Amino acid sequence: MAEIYHATATAPVNIAVIKYWGKASTKLNTPTNSSLSVTLSQDDLRTITTASCSASFDSDALWLNGAPHDVSNARSQACFAELRALRKAKEDQDSSLPPLSSYKLHLISENNFPTAAGLASSAAGFAAFVRAIADLYELEETPTQLSRIARQGSGSACRSLFGGYVAWEKGSREDGYDSIAVQVAPESHWPTMRAAVLVISDAKKGVSSTSGMQATVATSTLFPNRANVIVPARMEAMKKAIAEKDFEGFAELTMADSNSFHAVCLDTIPPIFYMNDSSRAAVRVVEEINRCAGKKVAAYTFDAGPNAVIYYDEANEDLILGVLKKATDHVTGWSDKYSRISPKVPDGFNDSLLAALSTGVSRIILTGVGSGPLKVPKENALIDNEGNPKSST
Amino acid sequence: MAEIYHATATAPVNIAVIKYWGKASTKLNTPTNSSLSVTLSQDDLRTITTASCSASFDSDALWLNGAPHDVSNARSQACFAELRALRKAKEDQDSSLPPLSSYKLHLISENNFPTAAGLASSAAGFAAFVRAIADLYELEETPTQLSRIARQGSGSACRSLFGGYVAWEKGSREDGYDSIAVQVAPESHWPTMRAAVLVISDAKKGVSSTSGMQATVATSTLFPNRANVIVPARMEAMKKAIAEKDFEGFAELTMADSNSFHAVCLDTIPPIFYMNDSSRAAVRVVEEINRCAGKKVAAYTFDAGPNAVIYYDEANEDLILGVLKKATDHVTGWSDKYSRISPKVPDGFNDSLLAALSTGVSRIILTGVGSGPLKVPKENALIDNEGNPKSST
Repeated sequence: MAEIYHATATAPVNIAVIKYWGKASTKLNTPTNSSLSVTLSQDDLRTITTASCSASFDSDALWLNGAPHDVSNARSQACFAELRALRKAKEDQDSSLPPLSSYKLHLISENNFPTAAGLASSAAGFAAFVRAIADLYELEETPTQLSRIARQGSGSACRSLFGGYVAWEKGSREDGYDSIAVQVAPESHWPTMRAAVLVISDAKKGVSSTSGMQATVATSTLFPNRANVIVPARMEAMKKAIAEKDFEGFAELTMADSNSFHAVCLDTIPPIFYMNDSSRAAVRVVEEINRCAGKKVAAYTFDAGPNAVIYYDEANEDLILGVLKKATDHVTGWSDKYSRISPKVPDGFNDSLLAALSTGVSRIILTGVGSGPLKVPKENALIDNEGNPKSST
Repeated sequence: MAEIYHATATAPVNIAVIKYWGKASTKLNTPTNSSLSVTLSQDDLRTITTASCSASFDSDALWLNGAPHDVSNARSQACFAELRALRKAKEDQDSSLPPLSSYKLHLISENNFPTAAGLASSAAGFAAFVRAIADLYELEETPTQLSRIARQGSGSACRSLFGGYVAWEKGSREDGYDSIAVQVAPESHWPTMRAAVLVISDAKKGVSSTSGMQATVATSTLFPNRANVIVPARMEAMKKAIAEKDFEGFAELTMADSNSFHAVCLDTIPPIFYMNDSSRAAVRVVEEINRCAGKKVAAYTFDAGPNAVIYYDEANEDLILGVLKKATDHVTGWSDKYSRISPKVPDGFNDSLLAALSTGVSRIILTGVGSGPLKVPKENALIDNEGNPKSST
């Protein structure tokens, strides 16, 4: 058997605070508006991917959590083609390099969080995919340059190539070349940003984000104003709030933009509903925490599903988690690390708001801002000697 | 005891298909956008009010369903003042008229539907209030002229002064003088319009429409475009659909405008939620009926609460009510009049959508387009010989 080349990388999940919703070009996977996210810690949520290639491999293949997945889709193919072209250019410059660009690829990928949780895993997945192949090919492109490729796999994946606070600038070129991610601030700039993910189950699976966002673009009369006027202003305000570590400003913009996104979903024909009664209970609890605090100490945001992500600053952890623990002490996720948190609500808190949250949440994931993709030592690769997944741990 | 003068009138409920949401002036009670409604039959939903006055009465008073209600609020006072001024002008012209404008008023009002149903009863209430006093005073003002007064009591009350299809034109004058209701078409133009009201209970009472709409005006960034651009275009399209008795056009506009209204509620800070998971189940059932029919045969709309109102043409009654009966056969409202309806769904209908509706609906009210206010013979007045409510029937 010919030599197997491989490299392994991890990539994080990111949760947008200014939302991506709407494609300017479905072919290029460019957005109708810029967006901005916080990268979450890989200690809690990450994809690990080993990219490997060999003259012995018969075809490109991908395994996710041990199961084979199709890579014939246009999105995966676009990423393969772009990365191979970059490798090919290197090989053309230096004939001593092994011709990896001509070999088939085997990708082996695992998430450290349950797929059933309904967390958007495609961002971490495509970021790890691109980062691992770029490492395998020893590409020197910057994360921003690679973000152009990851964007073609899954739009929000471009933001998972960085840690900290990340903008996806929509760009203005016809060919999508300037639709890329940039780091607004590293995690070290504002390391005390925390996130509690409330996993909320839903009887009915919502429409996929790809078809949902295109329905919104095609039919919502409120949408153009959001994409063209409201979000551009919010992007600037959010960058300023992050630069100044202004949590109140960050929180106001985060909540307003989440609601604006779900408003244009509701304004779609037929209407798209991602939030359910439990999601709304989470909104009410966050509003009540802020009311009792007399300022914005927590901010909710919802992606294309019912789960709530609640951002807060570490300084207010006892307050925020005290309330959440009182409502959800029974669910998975309250590890020993949080045993010091007493389940309690502040004085004057309307306890009746907790019941609806308590019944709706099935798991909590407690995490915070984190780093971008990381290299994994060769000995920890997910691949066996034949180029197949090692038996899953 | 001095003579008691009295007159009695009924007024209908109306349910908007282009929604009123936002006040241009809270003082004048003028709207940020025009709106359009269907008047519902008084056989099923109406307020009856006896207006009386006498030199013997000590103070203005109102009884609603037998219980005294305050009339010192600015809205009631504005209506009293305007109506008395019109009467006073008549008396000044003709000194033979009794000086009713100087007498205190007793108003006795009853609804033929349960207040607990959460139906907006203030529209019918203020329309009956104004119509009964105008009749007592023998005013010659047209319904449109009276609508200017009813609007000051409760905005949407101005539309309940007419039967059929009614527009409230926002007007452009600073003093609100041209913010009035006009009949777009009488009920005889399109008499086959039917409405099924699904009464849906909600654990949490939503914010009142008066405070909710002002929060939207103050904080929603999507709202100005709705009020200034989207609704004006829809008003014209809706008038055309009604003129042409084009149910599909009527349905598309009705559903889109309901969703647009709830979208700007969601875009309010903090967000306002009126629809709940049961409301959304009603949306899904209507969408599924239309999908199976291959065209729009039913249209949902939601006011400031979770109740669904489903409009349909009588020609499709067996289809629409068959599905609704299958889901809600157990609730109050399926009178003998509808015993001919078989609970059934059309071929290919996704039955799983019915369960969520079945658990959420507590009552159904089956009605249709109806007439404007009606005079009630003196012998049926709600007043006794002392000017107090007759013991309620």
